[in-house]
Amino acid sequence: MSNDEFAQHISGQFNSELEEVRSHLLAMGGMVEKQVEDAVSSLVNADSVLALEVLTTEKKINRMELAIDEECTRVIALRQPAASDLRLLVVTTKANIDLERMGDEASKIAKMAIKLSEDGVLPKGYIEVRHIGVHVCAMLHDALDAFARFDANLAVQVVHEDKSVDMEYESAMRQLVTFMMEDPRYITRVLNVLWSLRALERIGDHARNIAEHVIYLVKGRDVRHQSLDTL
Amino acid sequence: MSNDEFAQHISGQFNSELEEVRSHLLAMGGMVEKQVEDAVSSLVNADSVLALEVLTTEKKINRMELAIDEECTRVIALRQPAASDLRLLVVTTKANIDLERMGDEASKIAKMAIKLSEDGVLPKGYIEVRHIGVHVCAMLHDALDAFARFDANLAVQVVHEDKSVDMEYESAMRQLVTFMMEDPRYITRVLNVLWSLRALERIGDHARNIAEHVIYLVKGRDVRHQSLDTL
Repeated sequence: MSNDEFAQHISGQFNSELEEVRSHLLAMGGMVEKQVEDAVSSLVNADSVLALEVLTTEKKINRMELAIDEECTRVIALRQPAASDLRLLVVTTKANIDLERMGDEASKIAKMAIKLSEDGVLPKGYIEVRHIGVHVCAMLHDALDAFARFDANLAVQVVHEDKSVDMEYESAMRQLVTFMMEDPRYITRVLNVLWSLRALERIGDHARNIAEHVIYLVKGRDVRHQSLDTL
Repeated sequence: MSNDEFAQHISGQFNSELEEVRSHLLAMGGMVEKQVEDAVSSLVNADSVLALEVLTTEKKINRMELAIDEECTRVIALRQPAASDLRLLVVTTKANIDLERMGDEASKIAKMAIKLSEDGVLPKGYIEVRHIGVHVCAMLHDALDAFARFDANLAVQVVHEDKSVDMEYESAMRQLVTFMMEDPRYITRVLNVLWSLRALERIGDHARNIAEHVIYLVKGRDVRHQSLDTL
């Protein structure tokens, strides 16, 4: 084998390793997406069976996180990639953390769903959960899409979406406080809905983080803590 | 210069770069520690001036996060470190994210402090905030100490501490719900205390994350999502 062929062979192998890490992250992303959707459904439909499924899947997601993390570190150590390849691996490591945290938040929602389904009657605030849930799931879907297609424009859109989720969240919170004041007997149960909304808002934050990683990957600029108007 | 001398020179420079990254992270850690302490004080003493200071410092911490992140990626790209050096840089990148998130949570507490200080009177629940605040600050201090001294035993202790913080948090939550039920007029204000407790609990989680990174660094084993009994 000539040196050139050898270099090509190595770099071909490296590319397929990079591709593999990327596709593992996207597979995990798909699982987390379903996880969040199921968690919201389990809460809104008082479906404790579905909620238990969400809790089981979380363990699988945790294992995937560790595997992807190890994979990234191993590829960096063996291939010593430079510039854009290294950036891809660093970004994958970070997006991996965000995805795992979203899985945690989805589990919190599932736990609330189990508590609430025991009471039988649906408390108020469910419409708000469903509404914000749909919005946050769309954000996560777009963030993963932006990562898959290296699409910085879509990523910028996701960052903007996060602001409108935050506004919806604030208004839902005010609504829930009103419910609590009107009938203090429901405080504990409305608080469970409130924690679920909080978890959804955090899932939105993590989707935003992934989008910011994509922008960094594509544009080579770190946009965290910055205004996006100049992009 | 002989080859050996050259290698030593390079490696000397590399070591001082690693040392610099590490000391930058510890400096940031010290700032975040003060940030959390000040946020708790501002809430407990209804001190809106101190709370504003916390909000100003957050911007500084955000800038430090970006600088350390860039530094880590640059050193990995230039020096192509292997094994334990790479592990140190990856762990620093992750601990950096945790510290920045703690700064975010401290700012949330400071914002609650400003809201609550406007009302003048201290609502109930302050004792719980002070108590958990002291506990969480000690955890963060120990986590940073463990990182500075590569002390896996201390890190394991921090992970255990997180469980007792979580228990204190649960019991404080129940207490606050009782306050709300007793007098629904205070619901909004007690909710602000409740958000602050939640932020402290999350700061504890991040301190635990840093401790887990230290265990990984020293023992070469990833202990996330695992029982620590075998360590």
